Amino acid sequence: MRTGRTTTTASAPDVLARVREIVGAENVLVDADKVEPYAQDAVKEKFPPEAVVLPQTAEEIAAIMRLANERLFPVTARGGGVGYSGGAVPVDGGIVIGTDRMNQIREINVNDSYVVTEPGVTTYALQQAVEEHGLFYPPDPASYKNSYIGGNIAENAGGMRSAKYGVTKHYVLGLEVVTPTGEIMRTGGRVSKNVVGFDLTGLICGSEGMLGIITEATLKLLPLPEATRTVRATFKTMTEACACVPRFNRARVVPVAIEVLDRNSIRAVETEYAFGLDADAGALLLVAVDGHVAEVERAAQIVEQVVREGGGYDVLRAATREDEEKLWDVRRALSPAIKRFGTMKFNEDVVVPRSRVPELIERVEEIGREFDTFVVNFGHAGDGNIHVNFMCDRDDRDAMQRARAAVRATFAIAVALGGTISGEHGIGYVKAPYIDMALDAATIAAMKRIKHALDPNGILNPGKMFV
Amino acid sequence: MRTGRTTTTASAPDVLARVREIVGAENVLVDADKVEPYAQDAVKEKFPPEAVVLPQTAEEIAAIMRLANERLFPVTARGGGVGYSGGAVPVDGGIVIGTDRMNQIREINVNDSYVVTEPGVTTYALQQAVEEHGLFYPPDPASYKNSYIGGNIAENAGGMRSAKYGVTKHYVLGLEVVTPTGEIMRTGGRVSKNVVGFDLTGLICGSEGMLGIITEATLKLLPLPEATRTVRATFKTMTEACACVPRFNRARVVPVAIEVLDRNSIRAVETEYAFGLDADAGALLLVAVDGHVAEVERAAQIVEQVVREGGGYDVLRAATREDEEKLWDVRRALSPAIKRFGTMKFNEDVVVPRSRVPELIERVEEIGREFDTFVVNFGHAGDGNIHVNFMCDRDDRDAMQRARAAVRATFAIAVALGGTISGEHGIGYVKAPYIDMALDAATIAAMKRIKHALDPNGILNPGKMFV
Repeated sequence: MRTGRTTTTASAPDVLARVREIVGAENVLVDADKVEPYAQDAVKEKFPPEAVVLPQTAEEIAAIMRLANERLFPVTARGGGVGYSGGAVPVDGGIVIGTDRMNQIREINVNDSYVVTEPGVTTYALQQAVEEHGLFYPPDPASYKNSYIGGNIAENAGGMRSAKYGVTKHYVLGLEVVTPTGEIMRTGGRVSKNVVGFDLTGLICGSEGMLGIITEATLKLLPLPEATRTVRATFKTMTEACACVPRFNRARVVPVAIEVLDRNSIRAVETEYAFGLDADAGALLLVAVDGHVAEVERAAQIVEQVVREGGGYDVLRAATREDEEKLWDVRRALSPAIKRFGTMKFNEDVVVPRSRVPELIERVEEIGREFDTFVVNFGHAGDGNIHVNFMCDRDDRDAMQRARAAVRATFAIAVALGGTISGEHGIGYVKAPYIDMALDAATIAAMKRIKHALDPNGILNPGKMFV
Repeated sequence: MRTGRTTTTASAPDVLARVREIVGAENVLVDADKVEPYAQDAVKEKFPPEAVVLPQTAEEIAAIMRLANERLFPVTARGGGVGYSGGAVPVDGGIVIGTDRMNQIREINVNDSYVVTEPGVTTYALQQAVEEHGLFYPPDPASYKNSYIGGNIAENAGGMRSAKYGVTKHYVLGLEVVTPTGEIMRTGGRVSKNVVGFDLTGLICGSEGMLGIITEATLKLLPLPEATRTVRATFKTMTEACACVPRFNRARVVPVAIEVLDRNSIRAVETEYAFGLDADAGALLLVAVDGHVAEVERAAQIVEQVVREGGGYDVLRAATREDEEKLWDVRRALSPAIKRFGTMKFNEDVVVPRSRVPELIERVEEIGREFDTFVVNFGHAGDGNIHVNFMCDRDDRDAMQRARAAVRATFAIAVALGGTISGEHGIGYVKAPYIDMALDAATIAAMKRIKHALDPNGILNPGKMFV
């Protein structure tokens, strides 16, 4: 992997001329200042592409892909550019295909509960559009206001609601995909039961833009829940807080979201914003339920009872939408609150079986002490997906090195506890050096065989997932 | 594809000797009467294997696969042998690997809501085992008493409950798989959020035993719903009945199951069993809801109101478990009731967007008349997955040919209505001649490339899916 701007055949004048013919000269960017916004994602490391192409149709993308195979330059597709693993970043140079202009919702079908959309629609815009029809698209990655649906699918995005509703792949019924060799294929369809051939729809979900470029998606929708309720509580220990999680299920409640904040998270938000939280608390739980008005009330009461019996204190149960928003302010305050602990945040998203979360966090705290790095843990207790944030100064070489060592140690712990190294962010180039900690050689070999079978020239998003 | 018993290198004495070394002589069957039970599935066409091997471990299966690649004979894995597309049938001869002895549930984890199982456990046994712990495995293919979990995963089995709970693939967290070339790989894990590498777990689900042999599965479980309620109603027309389906959702009820019977189905069960149904009815709906006791009562009332407002009559709402079972007797009576219409049942399971079901059934009735073949339609109105059963006499060549033509015409209609040719049964060898009606050339080419990449010698389950 090279840093900085790389030159490939994509920069050849005849190649650029043909690209301009395909999509129109006004939709090809080559000036350094114009391509700069397409050089990075949320990891904030810059790899400027040689050209950015902004097509509007699958046919245009297919033509670009055929040209790329002819002249052997890399192509990387990009959605909202808000990923945390570098999936949309052209680490080996070449062309970035921006999907910004493919931003139309093509159909919202109320009777059959699906939406057909282009890839460049933001998650938020899609959710708003379907909610107007009483429908609900549950996946809600934290970046939903800026992330594109195409990127959500390519990364199999998760979010808070996955405790009840699952992740993006559970909602993708069908795709139109431009293959790495430039054909347009349709996978799946508009029906929720479909066993015709291998599940290419599922394979493309989470393939990180390495097996095809998504040009249209058909997504399953649910009826919009009538109401939500939230319960917040603090606990003396993380173990007590996490022990509540299976008890909700035993009481036959499946919360939409079960978010947890660890000791350092609580202190950070309290120091910065003075919410009135107990600064000595070991954990804070935020539990949301949804459903019919009558049911959510009952479910919220059960949640309250479970957390009280489980050692929760300062328990708050919101009765109105406004009160509910206030309870969640603590969670929203986290990212800004921890910024003062360093200019660089190693934002990892390991996942373990949910009963192992207390052990994970205990071990991560030890790792923080061992490598002298401030660490904040929070995330999705309902599915064991914890965001581990090691904070340090970007210009302090030694601190950066210690933080990287802490990250590797954390991954080892997650795997040892029966989990894995990423629940939401994906591998990209950022976690590629660690993939063999999570997968055995036979599994990686099978993935590489599939990649080579579909992309024999290695055109699509090189430098990712495998090293 | 050849019929009858085929001879390959699998029958060579040295090969059989090595197979006996691997699994023990007592676990290798070669006598005609011993292999006969492994020659067919529910399609009831016989393709006897040269040998049946009954291993107990992934290592034994891996050794068989390496031998098969060395000597180039076909291997076909088999679960309960109750499929409807011939997926477990060795059409090109070779060895059948029976998973009957791999029938242990390895772990039921209540706190983390998963079960780890060997592939040879029946769906029913697994459901019973987890329900003892208050947990719930929703997928319920009709053959659940005899189908194996391994087969369910290989075929991505559906069932009645999929209207609310989805299909098998939504519950598979991780797999241990023997690859076609004889390695053991682990995909996914024990966590519900996992974006490390391509989703091989999803790819294996529904791959019909062509990409690997499942030797262990980790399945996600839900809390067991407290109660269910059922509402039954007849309608003058199929259009009226199906128009209720999106209305349940609009009333914010997501039924577990929405089963529909068409005119001929109603007449068949009424003639045979005299349930007291209106023999002139155009459709019958069975709608089940589940959840907390208080909630199901309310939900069932909403369902009743929706069907009454939608033209439903003879509406029954069961208040007890016994009453509920009685309402479902009509559905259970269907298969025996239609047997008198022919010794051969072409049992197809097309799927269309659910709003198109009335049109599908109308067109299928026309096809029945055109090809002079009695046809019964019933199935899952909630997800548009309709079982179209053309009945004829197995010994009547002309009638058989007309029925086959009717099947092809039905597939064409399903695709034209925005659906596809199989929602649950898969392709196998039975529907392989039709797959190009449902998938475009680029999509089929991608599937073949994946198959070839993972199984370069074409060892695993040849003669399936593609022709």
